[in-house]
Amino acid sequence: MLINADVGESFGCWQMGQDALLMPWLDQASIACGFHAGDPAVMVKTVQLALEHRVEMGAHPSYPDLQGFGRRSMAMKPEEVTALIRYQVGALQAIAEAEGGQLGYVKPHGALYNDMMQNEQLLLAVMEAVAGLNRSRSQPLRLMLLAQMDNTQVQQLAEARDLPLYFEAFADRGYQADGWLIPRGQPGALLQTEAEVQQQANRLLRGDPVQADSLCLHGDHPQALAFAEALFQAVKHHAL
Amino acid sequence: MLINADVGESFGCWQMGQDALLMPWLDQASIACGFHAGDPAVMVKTVQLALEHRVEMGAHPSYPDLQGFGRRSMAMKPEEVTALIRYQVGALQAIAEAEGGQLGYVKPHGALYNDMMQNEQLLLAVMEAVAGLNRSRSQPLRLMLLAQMDNTQVQQLAEARDLPLYFEAFADRGYQADGWLIPRGQPGALLQTEAEVQQQANRLLRGDPVQADSLCLHGDHPQALAFAEALFQAVKHHAL
Amino acid sequence: MLINADVGESFGCWQMGQDALLMPWLDQASIACGFHAGDPAVMVKTVQLALEHRVEMGAHPSYPDLQGFGRRSMAMKPEEVTALIRYQVGALQAIAEAEGGQLGYVKPHGALYNDMMQNEQLLLAVMEAVAGLNRSRSQPLRLMLLAQMDNTQVQQLAEARDLPLYFEAFADRGYQADGWLIPRGQPGALLQTEAEVQQQANRLLRGDPVQADSLCLHGDHPQALAFAEALFQAVKHHAL
Amino acid sequence: MLINADVGESFGCWQMGQDALLMPWLDQASIACGFHAGDPAVMVKTVQLALEHRVEMGAHPSYPDLQGFGRRSMAMKPEEVTALIRYQVGALQAIAEAEGGQLGYVKPHGALYNDMMQNEQLLLAVMEAVAGLNRSRSQPLRLMLLAQMDNTQVQQLAEARDLPLYFEAFADRGYQADGWLIPRGQPGALLQTEAEVQQQANRLLRGDPVQADSLCLHGDHPQALAFAEALFQAVKHHAL
Repeated sequence: MLINADVGESFGCWQMGQDALLMPWLDQASIACGFHAGDPAVMVKTVQLALEHRVEMGAHPSYPDLQGFGRRSMAMKPEEVTALIRYQVGALQAIAEAEGGQLGYVKPHGALYNDMMQNEQLLLAVMEAVAGLNRSRSQPLRLMLLAQMDNTQVQQLAEARDLPLYFEAFADRGYQADGWLIPRGQPGALLQTEAEVQQQANRLLRGDPVQADSLCLHGDHPQALAFAEALFQAVKHHAL
Repeated sequence: MLINADVGESFGCWQMGQDALLMPWLDQASIACGFHAGDPAVMVKTVQLALEHRVEMGAHPSYPDLQGFGRRSMAMKPEEVTALIRYQVGALQAIAEAEGGQLGYVKPHGALYNDMMQNEQLLLAVMEAVAGLNRSRSQPLRLMLLAQMDNTQVQQLAEARDLPLYFEAFADRGYQADGWLIPRGQPGALLQTEAEVQQQANRLLRGDPVQADSLCLHGDHPQALAFAEALFQAVKHHAL
Repeated sequence: MLINADVGESFGCWQMGQDALLMPWLDQASIACGFHAGDPAVMVKTVQLALEHRVEMGAHPSYPDLQGFGRRSMAMKPEEVTALIRYQVGALQAIAEAEGGQLGYVKPHGALYNDMMQNEQLLLAVMEAVAGLNRSRSQPLRLMLLAQMDNTQVQQLAEARDLPLYFEAFADRGYQADGWLIPRGQPGALLQTEAEVQQQANRLLRGDPVQADSLCLHGDHPQALAFAEALFQAVKHHAL
Repeated sequence: MLINADVGESFGCWQMGQDALLMPWLDQASIACGFHAGDPAVMVKTVQLALEHRVEMGAHPSYPDLQGFGRRSMAMKPEEVTALIRYQVGALQAIAEAEGGQLGYVKPHGALYNDMMQNEQLLLAVMEAVAGLNRSRSQPLRLMLLAQMDNTQVQQLAEARDLPLYFEAFADRGYQADGWLIPRGQPGALLQTEAEVQQQANRLLRGDPVQADSLCLHGDHPQALAFAEALFQAVKHHAL
């Protein structure tokens, strides 16, 4: 089981997150690509930090919405989504390669992530974006998406495109019995304590309620660092 | 001698240029990368058009200035310039690869191009941007810049970085005796007729006043298509 | 019956529409405010043109989406919509006042216009935006919106806010029997000939199928100028 | 003597400054208008805060450069500068009026402020922007600019346009003997302690080395709150 978090979410003079402190606990870093956060200079620094900590780098593309931090759905056509994902992934890929690194995966951000999980046409646009990039790569990029109780349909769509996947679950969010996240704003949506996060991690490590390859932690949570260590301990202990 | 032009300069609903009509006359297409023109969807279409016409594709990165079309100098730090060039080149590279193509060169746009020719610190930032991308490429990207009467210094800087160059000259702009362009706004700055363009091309084909690898044509000139054909004939005739 | 059109939709180097030719036929000009089109310099020129032709000026605010020309819905909170409308209207108002003019109305653009007609919460956010601006004005701004067969509900909401309205109908779009526009993409959605536009105008002048204060013409239609004259003749003839 | 600071410099999800804590010490608040910081929703909140504390509000317009926080010079034409200042001031003015307030002044931000103090053509473009807005106002907006040892020329230019001015001096920056600020990066450029700020304030209150109407404090300084109180005490004590 891997641990991932969103990083590189500063922009220009504005700081967000504590990437340097969070990075040591991570296996995977999803790096903002300039459309909801991150700018070319921030991306360079974030890539350098990820390489220093030998963390797998993923591109974290978004709808074009800096003001809304990519959290507002936009009615984009599938071919627009395919194009903007390739644009953002390529931008980060070039920065990574110039620093001597490589990207391992793509994880859409915010509203684009949610919309993709609800709307098959968008999911196909995202898959096509990544599969198209893989045609010229020796090592394919994976697409990271939300683990559900039944991932069959998503897996079939991906296999038809030779697209390897990462399924992620949320270590700091509450789950419903049906395997979906408790919506934000409802009781239990956001876990509050390290004990809760550790308990949740232990459940997810047993595949309850969903089978995941990676556990996601929100880097902008006030207790993100404490949660990261709790998560790290849970995963390490499970692996023994 | 090659012929190049700037293309892909539409944005969203706004059209610019006549790329489909111009492309047949070109050897090289410098494609806008979203910072002064072009958006991901426009870039996809432009790449497809270039591939269809077997035209060498170059990235045409710019200062971040859509409103000013990249024609306004901005006081950016060298490391900011390095980062934004890698960002834009990478974005186009990914789109090109997904369509089955490859980029051949990088040509900075507008004010960034002019500033780079005047300011060695900026030129080094641009060179470092491209050289850094080449470290992970089997086929290196070239940097395209303005041919001067004496290119020695530029060539030395590039050789020290293993960076291959294209020198370009302007087929539709008047030259001073010292090999620099007549500034816009002065008499003779912009050539007006096909005969003038052809005459200028014939001079440049003889290395007068500068030695160039490629002749640039402005695609947004009202007579761009007629000039393109005149240029094409001049180059073809010269080659015989 | 008045005639209105959207104008000022150029941006930076990119031209759109034929404002100078269209303006003579208009009573009302809805001027883009920089979020989907228009930039401060374009807005100055458009205001000058409207003042020269003594055309009533309206602000034409949009979602923040230059690339999508404001035609893509965005999931914005009502208070975000209220704030962005005030921002855009104020920006245009200042430019108009500095040129010696005044705004007469506000007409949301594109996806924001459509969303407002479908979603009462958004409509209230728009109304609140304009009503709030009116509290410090001697001459209130009107809100322009789509005439429906039954405008009672909209009128009640506006009256409760002392907000005067303009109802507009579309002279170049086909109508369904229920008073809604035929959706774009379906047969009859876009009228094709001057005769059709004139016939449609004559129906609308009789309140069929909707009662309107103003007829809207799309300035970016290839035949916009011919349609404008046809419309002008229809309205003038009706007034006799 | 008044005390001013730049506020409203958050953007979207990104926070900057401690406006709520700083506002009680201020007489004047220069509010970002969306081009270097601030967005319509942030501007609403900032205006509400200023009104609550009965602080005079000023517009703080900038070059269009979010990523660079308006600190990078851009080669804009004077008429572009005039248009963008009117745009930004109008946007803030509308938001202020809808909240029941009024603007008192305009203070250009960052690189635009510096460029205006160095380049008379730009200064005239700024003055023309504000003077044009004043033609339709009963209470004119003032322009706030940097106090120099000899303000005669600036005052003459302003008087010719009926444009009232505020001269400001910097309470947290070191001054050279000639009345200019010590450039950032040189020893003494940034004051470090409350005692230094208070001492500097006491000198400026005596007109040494420049005569000012208002003392500016940087809200993003780590000790901004302590400096604000030190400044407040110095000014209050001087007034007794």
